[in-house]
This record gives sequence, structure tokens and C-alpha cells, in this order.
Amino acid sequence: MILRTLTALLLSASLIACGAAQADLMVEKKSFTTKDFTTVSGETIADVTVGWEAYGELNEAKDNVILITHFFSGNSHAAGKYTANDPQPGYWDAIIGPGKAIDTDKYYVISSDTLVNAFPHLPHVITTGPASTNPATGKPYGLDFPVVTIRDFVNVQHALLQSLGIEKLHAVVGASMGSLQAIEWASAYPDMVERMVSVIGTGAMDAWTITALEHWARPIKLDPNWNQGNYYDGEAPLTGVTNTLVMITQQAMHPVAFNQTSPKQEVLPKSALESVMNGLPATDFWFGAAAKNAPLADANHLLYLVRANQLFVAGHDTDLATGLEKIKAKTLFLPAKNDLLLQPYLAKQTVEILKAQGKSPQYDEIDGTFGHLDGVYNIQSKANVLADFINE
Amino acid sequence: MILRTLTALLLSASLIACGAAQADLMVEKKSFTTKDFTTVSGETIADVTVGWEAYGELNEAKDNVILITHFFSGNSHAAGKYTANDPQPGYWDAIIGPGKAIDTDKYYVISSDTLVNAFPHLPHVITTGPASTNPATGKPYGLDFPVVTIRDFVNVQHALLQSLGIEKLHAVVGASMGSLQAIEWASAYPDMVERMVSVIGTGAMDAWTITALEHWARPIKLDPNWNQGNYYDGEAPLTGVTNTLVMITQQAMHPVAFNQTSPKQEVLPKSALESVMNGLPATDFWFGAAAKNAPLADANHLLYLVRANQLFVAGHDTDLATGLEKIKAKTLFLPAKNDLLLQPYLAKQTVEILKAQGKSPQYDEIDGTFGHLDGVYNIQSKANVLADFINE
Repeated sequence: MILRTLTALLLSASLIACGAAQADLMVEKKSFTTKDFTTVSGETIADVTVGWEAYGELNEAKDNVILITHFFSGNSHAAGKYTANDPQPGYWDAIIGPGKAIDTDKYYVISSDTLVNAFPHLPHVITTGPASTNPATGKPYGLDFPVVTIRDFVNVQHALLQSLGIEKLHAVVGASMGSLQAIEWASAYPDMVERMVSVIGTGAMDAWTITALEHWARPIKLDPNWNQGNYYDGEAPLTGVTNTLVMITQQAMHPVAFNQTSPKQEVLPKSALESVMNGLPATDFWFGAAAKNAPLADANHLLYLVRANQLFVAGHDTDLATGLEKIKAKTLFLPAKNDLLLQPYLAKQTVEILKAQGKSPQYDEIDGTFGHLDGVYNIQSKANVLADFINE
Repeated sequence: MILRTLTALLLSASLIACGAAQADLMVEKKSFTTKDFTTVSGETIADVTVGWEAYGELNEAKDNVILITHFFSGNSHAAGKYTANDPQPGYWDAIIGPGKAIDTDKYYVISSDTLVNAFPHLPHVITTGPASTNPATGKPYGLDFPVVTIRDFVNVQHALLQSLGIEKLHAVVGASMGSLQAIEWASAYPDMVERMVSVIGTGAMDAWTITALEHWARPIKLDPNWNQGNYYDGEAPLTGVTNTLVMITQQAMHPVAFNQTSPKQEVLPKSALESVMNGLPATDFWFGAAAKNAPLADANHLLYLVRANQLFVAGHDTDLATGLEKIKAKTLFLPAKNDLLLQPYLAKQTVEILKAQGKSPQYDEIDGTFGHLDGVYNIQSKANVLADFINE
């Protein structure tokens, strides 16, 4: 069961919802295209297309909108099911739906994909990135795709909202990389954002996290099949991608849940004692699971996602404080107590800066044994905090 | 200064000693060879040679011996200097020397190298492993070298002590991988070991740590120059080794010290925004430092060290409890509070098993901002605890 949910997290298609049993919300993936999109790096992308979903109804004033932004391995499937037969609903189904913390009876909840999604080959993921066809050449962009930033993700979402005539966000809520987008939204478009919820997030990357992210990129670059990003006519660098996916999974977890999920190792397993080429039960298990998911990912997309995260500092201004200074939204920070990837000190630092600026950020920690993933698996433990913040 | 000490840690040749200024202990590296060494895996190594050092004087009864066992990136240079001009003394000079916690006025302190040392090309390191010449072929062993375990490291040290006529250890003390050896000593030779000190250690590897270690091996195996371990006539897989060394360094640290040591990143650095091929200040810094050290390491040795650690469970018996049951020594466990590599829960689990067996292990946590490395850099903060335990 835990394994299934973890595998699912990597795929990000479906996570166990821990809320009370209710009739499933049925959703459909939609697609949005914007032309001649200019990136922060000053490049132009002829066609940007991303997927999005919506739950609930947009009111006439178009002022009941809550935007959900997704995490690194995720996509816009935050709640509900595509068909009644789907084994699992979207990743935050525990808190998004009729009568739930993010109440779709009241709010029109939009969940948007980002550029350079890690798993472009997963059904229902719609994204634009290095694996997309460059209209100028008729071939995949590869490394000709411009470097994109969290601000670019936000700007694509801004264009999507504009196309729907939405000029105000009642709230923007995101976990992990979704939290970076949420904070960026509040800084980049302060007059649009009334409430911002950062779950397992940070206002800026520090050297520790930048270097941790770099380790996710390096196995791909080391894989000879990567070939400087030109592998679309040949073998994809799946060994490198597999290593990357295991690192992401492990760093998103805490030892307690990781050990509970892993197979036990007998003392001195014979094959492992025979050769350093042979695996161990835990490594065979995690690398085997990741190898199955690797073909759904794109190696270049992973490199671009890593870079977007490495470059993040809210507001992209001279420093973090200046970026945070612009925020007008009410803010709520929900780091996970046992997070080993984006540890609570990061959210605390951001909160302290906001307080020093005379703002009143709310702060609470999610408990659990999943580590970073408690922001997904145990989000319902903060359902009341979240509901109070959103409805206040 | 911090950088220098960190670089030095990777080289393991020299660490800042924080004890009071004293005349330097002068030491020399010695060498020990044992013939036809049989490994736990049932193979025979014709010649095993390892380095060792000693501080203090062996008494007539040969019962004042304290053995120091070294950590993953380390070697037997635990204290003192080779020449008066050495910039820094051995890594635990703060606690080993005349009048220090491990008092060389009282004790004969022996520090031994292990098999498959990570840095065989470092001056003063004497080890036997895949990079050593196989007398049967006249060429380096490569992957023909047998898999070795922590017990093998201990058995080589046992042969060294036998050669010196030593039949009793007043204490065995080690940090990290050295702690694994210390616990293994107490379980494998319970009648020889009177006291055991485990610093930043564990009684057994768990799936979390086994998988974390696996990530240290994978970049080497991905590097095309590794060539299934046959690179001794060509280019060494230095890119893979560099990635491994950065991972080791980062995981041995805590974000506070890591961030203090890293260069600051301006907002949206131009080159990083131009291409995912370009580095960032922190990644250039850490990967650059590791690249300089990489030629001193051996890729295959790193793989063998990883495997030895992955296979560790004290006593190599049916399970950890059975292995710990054999221990007769008094034990002291000193994990580091902010350790993110071998977190305190590991030492606690071992302590709980020993208590359940009616033993009285001592437990204390080392504080600091270095994480795992507090077991090296801040060991002097537990000098009194250590001295009391050893002299009691």
C-alpha cells in the first residue's frame, strides 16, 4: 500500500486520500496555449501549452478562485478522478472537494501544470519543454529550450487566468515546488493575491538545497545516453534518470517511512558478498521501482526543473527581503516537522523576514513520519488550520 | 578556514585541533603485512598491508592499549604530526595526546588503517584493495578483489595486535565507519575489549542508510571511464568520483555549516540563466573542490567501502540483537545531535537493545552545527565524558 502510494507519487498521478469517504469529484484535464511567451531569461517560446484542471464553479464576479500549484514530480491532478474506475484521486483530494478544507462548494479551484514537467510521457500531463517540438526545426528543442524559472511558471498561469477573465485570487496554495510558485505569485502579482499558503516550502533556495538539487542533475549528465541532451532519436538516458528518481524519492522521505517500506536485509546476503556489482534488497527495490517509472520522465525536463528550483528567490529582486517586501497577501506557512529536503528552518527564515517587515505570517508544522511527503500525505492533519485561513 | 578543514577532511590528512596549545606529538606511519588473509566472504588475499600509527608507550603488561578506528574518508592519522612543518595534526588531535581525554601519558594508542581505503593515492595512506597489485597477475585486482566487510577490517587489526603481542584492549574508539569497527570489535572479540566508544555510529545499517550509500556508488558506475572497474591503464572515472565526494561531504554536514562555507548566489546569475550546462556559485565551489581531491581517491575502493558499510550489522550473526548479545565491554555512544547521515536514532536503537539485554550503555549527544562532522570537529565538547569513561 505504501509502496503503491510512493510509486504513485513519482508518477504523481494519484495519491491516497485520507479524508472521509465521499462521492468522487469527477474532473477533466484541459489545455491552455499561449503564443510567443517571453521568459525571464529574455527568450521567446513560440507555443507554450500546459494542462489544467478545475474543481467547483466560477462565480459571476470571478472572485472565488483558488489556484493550486504543483510539486516537482507532480502535475495539475490535485483532486478528483478522471473516470470512476481510477484507482486513486488527485494528490490533495483529502483537502480539495465539496465540504473539504478547500471547499469546492464555495470556491473555483484551478490547478495548473508547469513548464518542463518532469514526467511529460505520463498520460494526462500536458507541458512544454525540451522534449516538445521546436516549430523552427520540427525537432525536439533539447538544450535549445531556454532556461525557465519559477516566475515563468507563474507567468504562464497568469496568462491562463487572464484567458478566463480572472483578475483576483482568493488564495494560491502549493506544496514544495508548488510553494515556491505560490510565494512567487504573491510577490510578482501582489494586487491579485489575497492569501498565500506555502506547504513544505521556502522563500529562497540556500546553498545546501541548491547543491542537493545538483545531485539530481548529475547522474543524467553522466549517463552516456544523455549525449548533451540529444537523445530523442536514440536511447534515452534511463540509468541516469533512474538514479535521479531514487534520490528524489529518498530525500522526500524520512527514515521511518522509508525503512518501513523497504524490504528487510538478511545478514550478509550471499550475492552482495560475492560482488560489488550485485544489489541489496533495499537498493534492488527502490532502483527497480524507479526504473519502471523512468521511461515516463524526460531527462532534459528534469535538468530544467532542477535549474528552475536552484534559481529560486521570491520576487527575483535584489534579495529575498526585497522580494518579500512586495507581498500584500495574508500568508500561512506549513512546513513538515521531519522534512529532510526543505527543512522547517527555511520556512522559518522566510516567516522571520515577513515579521520584521511588520507582516503577520501564520506558521504551523505538519507532523508525521513521511518527512517532506508529510506535506502531501498528512496535509489533512492541518485541514482546520487551512480552512480557517482560507475562509477568514 | 572552514573550507580548508573540509577539504582536509575529504583528504582526511589533517583537521583543526581545538584543544589547548601544546607541543606537537610527533608520529610516524608504520606498515603491517599479513599473508594469506581469509575474508568473511571466504576468499584469500595473498598479501594484506595496512598502515598504522601509535601514540604513547606500551607498558610491560601490554594492557594499556587503546585502538582508534577511522571513518569512511579517513585513515590512521588520528593525532600528532609527521613533521614539525605539517600544517595540521591528525583528525582527533583534540582528544588524543599527553594529558588529553585519551591520555598518551597513560595509554598506548594505536590507530590502524583499513582495507580498501578511499584515498590510496594520498601520501601516508597504506592500504590493500582493488588498486593494489594482484600477485597472481602482476596487475591491479580491479573487481577481482574480494568483497570485504567491517569484520575483515577488524580481523586485519586483530592480526596487527597479535603481531605486537597485544591480547587486551583497554578501549576501542571510532567515529562513523570507525564506530562500526569499534562495535564489531566488541562483538567479534568480546574477551579482548574492555571498553567500546561509538562516536556518530550505529549497530547496524538500515535501508535508509544502505540506499544513501548506494547513491555514493552510482555516479562511479555511470562514468564511462569506470569501465567495469578496469581503468588502471587508462583514464580514471574522475567525474563520477567527484560527484561521489561532493555527496559524501554534503551528507556529512548540516545546512548551517554548509551554507556558511558556500559562496553566496546573486539573484538570477547570468550564466546559470543562459544554460543548464553552466554551474552556480555553490555547485562550482563544492564540485571544484572535490575535483581537486578526486585523483587521490580510487573509484573501485570507494565502491568496496560503500559495500562494506552496506553489509554492516554488528556481529554478523542472525540479527543485530544476537550480535550485541555477545558484547562484554562497557559501552559509550556519542551520536551528533544534528547528524543527517547517521542520525541519533541509529545509536538510540542500539542502546535500547543493549539495555533490554541487561547492559548499561552510556549515551550522550554531541551538539554543533556541522552535523555528522560534529563527531570530528566538536569531539572535544565531550572530552570529559570520554575521559571519565576511559579512566573509570
